[in-house]
Amino acid sequence: MNFSSKLLEDAVNEFSKLPGVGQKTALRLVLHLLNKEQEEVNQFGNTLIKLKQEIKNCSICYNISDHTICEICTSHKRDKETICVVEDTRDVMAIENTGQYFGVYHVLGGLISPMDGIGPADLYIDGLVQRVSTGDIKEVILALSPNMEGDTTLFYLFKRLKEFNVPITTIARGIAFGGELEYTDEITLGRSIITRVPYENAMMR
Amino acid sequence: MNFSSKLLEDAVNEFSKLPGVGQKTALRLVLHLLNKEQEEVNQFGNTLIKLKQEIKNCSICYNISDHTICEICTSHKRDKETICVVEDTRDVMAIENTGQYFGVYHVLGGLISPMDGIGPADLYIDGLVQRVSTGDIKEVILALSPNMEGDTTLFYLFKRLKEFNVPITTIARGIAFGGELEYTDEITLGRSIITRVPYENAMMR
Ligand SMILES: [Zn+2]
Ligand SMILES: [Zn+2]
Repeated sequence: MNFSSKLLEDAVNEFSKLPGVGQKTALRLVLHLLNKEQEEVNQFGNTLIKLKQEIKNCSICYNISDHTICEICTSHKRDKETICVVEDTRDVMAIENTGQYFGVYHVLGGLISPMDGIGPADLYIDGLVQRVSTGDIKEVILALSPNMEGDTTLFYLFKRLKEFNVPITTIARGIAFGGELEYTDEITLGRSIITRVPYENAMMR
Repeated sequence: MNFSSKLLEDAVNEFSKLPGVGQKTALRLVLHLLNKEQEEVNQFGNTLIKLKQEIKNCSICYNISDHTICEICTSHKRDKETICVVEDTRDVMAIENTGQYFGVYHVLGGLISPMDGIGPADLYIDGLVQRVSTGDIKEVILALSPNMEGDTTLFYLFKRLKEFNVPITTIARGIAFGGELEYTDEITLGRSIITRVPYENAMMR
């Protein structure tokens, strides 16, 4: 691209670093901001800087939080004896949205991925092991994405946690509501047959 | 969305204000930034703030510029007697990329759009009329997107400029009606400049 301004080029380059944002999209976003008042642009930039400066990870569950301990971990309404282990804060948000879960969380901050050079030491796994080792936990639910990295992480966590004799469960895998049987991949379909449940139980949920 | 952090929510809301960015995309972009170092996030935010603070419109052609007069208007290699009138800086970039044009520009800063409440007074039209009124201009090329707003603006500019007896041309309609100038490939755009026609002829078709 042939920029008429170095300032413009710098801003477009910053936006282009974001995932899924090409140069044309970046230019469109920057020109949009340029049409705003200075005050609004300042707010955009400063909100991001402040976020990075002030955001914390909850010292118990490692979820993104404005405080040292997050709202879920401090809530008296949540069952502290059930831990749902997830990859990141988006999964916490998705599960909270279902309104079906009343325990607490543990955010790993990623999944084990040898391909991307992410090992167990890069994740908040020791914190999880310590929480479980106290003996106060009645169930650990592993709610990880059903893919290669998720399965690798599941296997690793199971090995690390089994010595504590805590029931370890994983979220049910199967065909999503609205999904079409014929377009479901073989692994999912195969597993959903193996892990079939009595009709009454399935409908109870 | 159910945010675990007000700081996170604020940042996601800022990104969501950008055109074409939904809340899920905004969250993905913010979490990406959050994984960067403080220094990089500062650079992202401050680059945008600085852009808005320091950017200028060229006092001659109104294109986005780091200086009072832009590089094209100051260049001794450009033909100052030919003015190519465009909607915004993206069109200047697109035409510069063709390598087919050696005159100067006039950036309107938009197109007349009664639907969006944009009238002639909202655009840099008086500056164009003044440039043409000096008598030093040999040709005005109207290179506007071939859509409703483009045609309305063409018609208005023609009325304003015809008293100066300067040849007024429009880029050839190699571009389908409804197409956007900035997304046109270089060859089509380059050819449409070379085969530009007098405004009256174009409107006859
Ligand atoms: Zn917490
Ligand atoms: Zn200029």
